[in-house]
Amino acid sequence: MTSTISRNAPVPPGGTVGILGGGQLGRMLSLAAARLGLKTHIYSPPNEDAPAFQVSDAQTRAAFDDKVALEIFERACDAVTFEWENVPVETVEIISRIGLVFPNAATLRATQDRFEEKSFLTSLGLNTAPFRNVTSALEAKNAVAALGTPSILKTRRLGYDGKGQGKIVSAKDAQQAFARFKSVPCILEGFVDFAFEASVLAVRGRDGSFAAYDPPENIHGDHILRRSIVPSRLSAAQIEEAKSIAKKIADALDYVGVLAVELFVMNDGSLLVNEIAPRVHNSGHWTIDACLVSQFENHIRAVAGWPLGSTERHSDAVMENLIGEEAADWKGLASRKDGALHLYGKAEIRAGRKMGHVTYLTPRTQ
Amino acid sequence: MTSTISRNAPVPPGGTVGILGGGQLGRMLSLAAARLGLKTHIYSPPNEDAPAFQVSDAQTRAAFDDKVALEIFERACDAVTFEWENVPVETVEIISRIGLVFPNAATLRATQDRFEEKSFLTSLGLNTAPFRNVTSALEAKNAVAALGTPSILKTRRLGYDGKGQGKIVSAKDAQQAFARFKSVPCILEGFVDFAFEASVLAVRGRDGSFAAYDPPENIHGDHILRRSIVPSRLSAAQIEEAKSIAKKIADALDYVGVLAVELFVMNDGSLLVNEIAPRVHNSGHWTIDACLVSQFENHIRAVAGWPLGSTERHSDAVMENLIGEEAADWKGLASRKDGALHLYGKAEIRAGRKMGHVTYLTPRTQ
Repeated sequence: MTSTISRNAPVPPGGTVGILGGGQLGRMLSLAAARLGLKTHIYSPPNEDAPAFQVSDAQTRAAFDDKVALEIFERACDAVTFEWENVPVETVEIISRIGLVFPNAATLRATQDRFEEKSFLTSLGLNTAPFRNVTSALEAKNAVAALGTPSILKTRRLGYDGKGQGKIVSAKDAQQAFARFKSVPCILEGFVDFAFEASVLAVRGRDGSFAAYDPPENIHGDHILRRSIVPSRLSAAQIEEAKSIAKKIADALDYVGVLAVELFVMNDGSLLVNEIAPRVHNSGHWTIDACLVSQFENHIRAVAGWPLGSTERHSDAVMENLIGEEAADWKGLASRKDGALHLYGKAEIRAGRKMGHVTYLTPRTQ
Repeated sequence: MTSTISRNAPVPPGGTVGILGGGQLGRMLSLAAARLGLKTHIYSPPNEDAPAFQVSDAQTRAAFDDKVALEIFERACDAVTFEWENVPVETVEIISRIGLVFPNAATLRATQDRFEEKSFLTSLGLNTAPFRNVTSALEAKNAVAALGTPSILKTRRLGYDGKGQGKIVSAKDAQQAFARFKSVPCILEGFVDFAFEASVLAVRGRDGSFAAYDPPENIHGDHILRRSIVPSRLSAAQIEEAKSIAKKIADALDYVGVLAVELFVMNDGSLLVNEIAPRVHNSGHWTIDACLVSQFENHIRAVAGWPLGSTERHSDAVMENLIGEEAADWKGLASRKDGALHLYGKAEIRAGRKMGHVTYLTPRTQ
């Protein structure tokens, strides 16, 4: 059994960080851990392409509800984290009963449900889009009456990249969308006329230390992140406010690791929290090339109980995602001298799939 | 069998680059290959600590003269390279008979023997320290008479980090050192009163394209690299000359991959070639943090037949090696905000062993 002392001790060089999920985020976490002399052990469900397997020291293929596999996995690791916010809470709870897992299960629970998440954020005094819980056709109608149209109906759980959401222009619309989502619990969010989107990539250590990167401005297309740009159009005061929002959330959750906070920047300059992701985030991929210590390394440092690294940016950066067939032009992208090409080692190009990204750097202007 | 067309085609994303040797250079090559969506297969002799195994997709444990293992390895790879200049030439020749290996065997042969290497360099019209072949006690005496003292006797083969060399102050000294080296073929090098040391990290693609990083200034202690600094004290004209020396060497060898050329910078401003290494090099480790594309990625790009990436430097850098016990203070080093810590995943700290390095970045000044 792990003693109290070893639970609190940092994972030493040569130790192993376990990662639940084997996608591109797990892969980039593995590469970052390797810089620090740490090994990684990737746990990925059967039948999923797990490109993180290619760069890790150990691999487990098992379902997230396989208690025996989870226990064996935990015993092979000095600390565990996850790369996906929809890892079952029960999975993280099983591991936390016998070992260390960061971020904690309570955080995961709060962020897996849009209604819980927004309720938590407003309880901290943070601004979000107006929202209503929708668990019946009647509530759908009432929610539209309260928030007006246009608005957006989203399933409370398991939505990402625009999946499980529909634009609502009438009460009837909301009821039809609710039925289309098989009457699972939903949330109606009021229309937010924002000027642009930004995000904070923050990191909190086991000891409560906190740091944040310069918030990028994010541009989406078809609900998928297309481009992140630093510096953003945020003022110095807004940058400070954005970081303090992230700190308030991270402290409240006793969060350990990298936390992403997606923001709407309103025309009056105020900041609304759109959503939070308890993990490294696509809008922070530019930190690999534009910072001394990337979001991935800082996440590993936090989870492993190490001191946090610098979050300073040495260059301006534009990160562009490569979605689906865009990655087929890898030779053309690799020949550009102003960009760093990153490909995720996925076995197959599919429409809408994040295959890689390119970071373009220019000298720092501000 | 590999056809002519596939031999010349680049290794596509998802393909495998084989690496002979599993030390820190192989490890950093693996990490760089992963950025490009390439897999690596590490081949390492039995009983050697092979930290590259921890971050590679496939591993072979076999001796460098195991022909069956080498053939199986080659067939699992789309192109092969090496991380160590003392891989037996025969090993590389076995692979080159059935597949692609870069740099080529002739280069390896020339650089494994100090006398052959210096003879090759002077045949290109490049300046080196004066040298004499020493294969007998008589030649040792005659060499000292020709070159004077102090001078340095080195074994022609298998020396690194100061091993297999001795300072010579008399003819008797040279004969004793020759006997101590068990009368293996040696080379006597005349004393060179240089102002400082520098190196060129250059890369040449399969198509003959060429690029070079800004040459670092290097500081050694006990014959081991301690520190590399960019920018160096080289003038713009000297930088151009250094790069053209590297290009002359690379072109003459039909070289593919990263080539390191160690230089003595004389008080009169002239450049002498000290030695060349047919591989990524310790004095180029700062490129991971200070350049968009590192020496490791550019080596992989060249070997895989990809376009070369940028060799531009976005920051000034100082790279400090962590030798032996210096790596024990990993927590203190990790807490510095001005540096990026790199640890190599070696199982055990040993005196004189390269355990990691730290790169300190500051804004680019020139």
